[in-house]
Amino acid sequence: MGLNDLLNHTSEWLKGTGPHSDIVISSRVRLARNIDKLPFPHWGNKKQSEQVLKAIEEAIQRIDYLKPTTVFKLSDIDSLDKQFLIERHLMSIEHAQKADNKAIVIDEDEVLTIMINEEDHIRMQVMQSGFNLFEAWNIINKIDDSLAKELRIAFLPDWGYLTACPTNTGTGMRGSVMLHLPALVITRQIDRVLAAISKLSFTTRGLYGEGTQASGNFFQISNQVSLGHSEEGIIDNLTGLIRQIIEQENQARQAMFSKNQAVLEDRINRSLGILRSAHIISSQETIELLSMVRLGADLGIIKDIDRRRINELFIITLPAHLQKTENKKLTSIERDVKRAELIRNKLNLS
Amino acid sequence: MGLNDLLNHTSEWLKGTGPHSDIVISSRVRLARNIDKLPFPHWGNKKQSEQVLKAIEEAIQRIDYLKPTTVFKLSDIDSLDKQFLIERHLMSIEHAQKADNKAIVIDEDEVLTIMINEEDHIRMQVMQSGFNLFEAWNIINKIDDSLAKELRIAFLPDWGYLTACPTNTGTGMRGSVMLHLPALVITRQIDRVLAAISKLSFTTRGLYGEGTQASGNFFQISNQVSLGHSEEGIIDNLTGLIRQIIEQENQARQAMFSKNQAVLEDRINRSLGILRSAHIISSQETIELLSMVRLGADLGIIKDIDRRRINELFIITLPAHLQKTENKKLTSIERDVKRAELIRNKLNLS
Repeated sequence: MGLNDLLNHTSEWLKGTGPHSDIVISSRVRLARNIDKLPFPHWGNKKQSEQVLKAIEEAIQRIDYLKPTTVFKLSDIDSLDKQFLIERHLMSIEHAQKADNKAIVIDEDEVLTIMINEEDHIRMQVMQSGFNLFEAWNIINKIDDSLAKELRIAFLPDWGYLTACPTNTGTGMRGSVMLHLPALVITRQIDRVLAAISKLSFTTRGLYGEGTQASGNFFQISNQVSLGHSEEGIIDNLTGLIRQIIEQENQARQAMFSKNQAVLEDRINRSLGILRSAHIISSQETIELLSMVRLGADLGIIKDIDRRRINELFIITLPAHLQKTENKKLTSIERDVKRAELIRNKLNLS
Repeated sequence: MGLNDLLNHTSEWLKGTGPHSDIVISSRVRLARNIDKLPFPHWGNKKQSEQVLKAIEEAIQRIDYLKPTTVFKLSDIDSLDKQFLIERHLMSIEHAQKADNKAIVIDEDEVLTIMINEEDHIRMQVMQSGFNLFEAWNIINKIDDSLAKELRIAFLPDWGYLTACPTNTGTGMRGSVMLHLPALVITRQIDRVLAAISKLSFTTRGLYGEGTQASGNFFQISNQVSLGHSEEGIIDNLTGLIRQIIEQENQARQAMFSKNQAVLEDRINRSLGILRSAHIISSQETIELLSMVRLGADLGIIKDIDRRRINELFIITLPAHLQKTENKKLTSIERDVKRAELIRNKLNLS
């Protein structure tokens, strides 16, 4: 598999399937692991990181069901392709900095990715469409077990898995759910909800993880603590919290629809109208308008465009995706023009 | 002819024909006249205003080519119909106040209207599409001559025609041209242009004459002085000024089109996109968006909607027109919903 093959594939997190997929975009579980007796990437020298990379690559090749994955060395990937992987939520922004003995392992379904020599030796994640944390956990747990048979993983009985940053020590696990909460935002209840999430020791982030702002009414909610709870306990807690947020978003949607149907129809249809007619449009405006169109499709206000076409647009309109599709570097204003053209083409199909 | 017959007629000022009709919406000449020896309407008693009305009505009936006109007594017209006539630029806002012995004479082409007992006994106007001041003057001059044969018009050789307000004394004439100047507004040159107009003793008003603001990039420019110049002299001066403004608007359009084509296409197409998709829309927003769409049609950026359909929308979306079309009173929010529906229907025709 080459990276360009992903261009025509719909990312797992944008498939729009799975339980509660009208509100929950995707569920993700990631594990941080390190090889025993070798320093964490930031402390190790070049030779040591080379050793780490080699050991993990070989381990993967010995695991049968990981054979369909592809290993990409970051030194072989240009900056556009790195941005492309970040946009697809396959790679972290941190991993894209410096290429020394870093690699990323991707399966062609874009369910599993393993980042090698990120903050930890191993950062693996499994994504599932919709509200599917337990399924993601089951898949990643199996991969973790297989890797543990091939590699000596740093682990202390009292502390659990050792990690570069102490916030990940213990289970080394982070469960994350990407939610689309337009009704809570429009009805101005979101701040109250986010404050409650924070009090309960969960973290809210934007579309692209750590350090990014929420945009387009997308919120990624994760556990903050990974120590002192079992993996199942963490997922259980997160699942319970997400259930409550889904319920609140649903109530807000119903209330908006019954009390302000005309206002809502106006806003949603205008958003689609602008997407269908703009000739210059930024990523940010695109995400915000698509968010409203997606809400319209969820509520049955927009009937002629299915959720999958909307979801695809979220990703193919991003800067690196646009440039890979056009197969050339584009300036910001060139992207805004091409983006508008692409959206018009996709949304004016009859 | 009944007032409802006008509903399916395109107002002269919105036909979109005539010279320079991409920039000049319409040309209008109005004359103020009073009957000798009878007090001006504001000073006269009921009996006197009755006498005025009767004398003018009878005079009109004796003039052959005024026979196809219809006389509407304002006491027979409800407030919705008054608003309807104001929206069509057939009646002044002032004339709609109090009904005592007021009347309005309308011809079915909506070229000529005569208001009886407005500020003066007679306020007659002739409208022409496009830049056609001299034609408007020729028509109204002939009507004025005919009326002068039937009525004793108040006139002093040294002063000219006597009028209730001294600003109209002399010729009693006002020439007005309605201009659509989006490029001068967008390129922020309009303030300079308006300041120059004002220095040259011309007046700028909004869409609905005295006391109204410019909106949708429409500006109505008239002579301020009616004394000390011949009618032809006034029209000549105004024509010269308008020619210069047309030239400046044309230059601004060409400059925008060549320097910022993508920005312009974006703005124009978004305006059309919003009109085609909104479910709630105010008159004000409608006028502003239609102004951009009209510019788009003038510049060939919008090809599938002809100027006449755009022009019709300017008027049928106004509050009284909407209510007459729906044949019932509508609240402001009901109008905003109906207006959006009407616009969608008219602009989504293939």
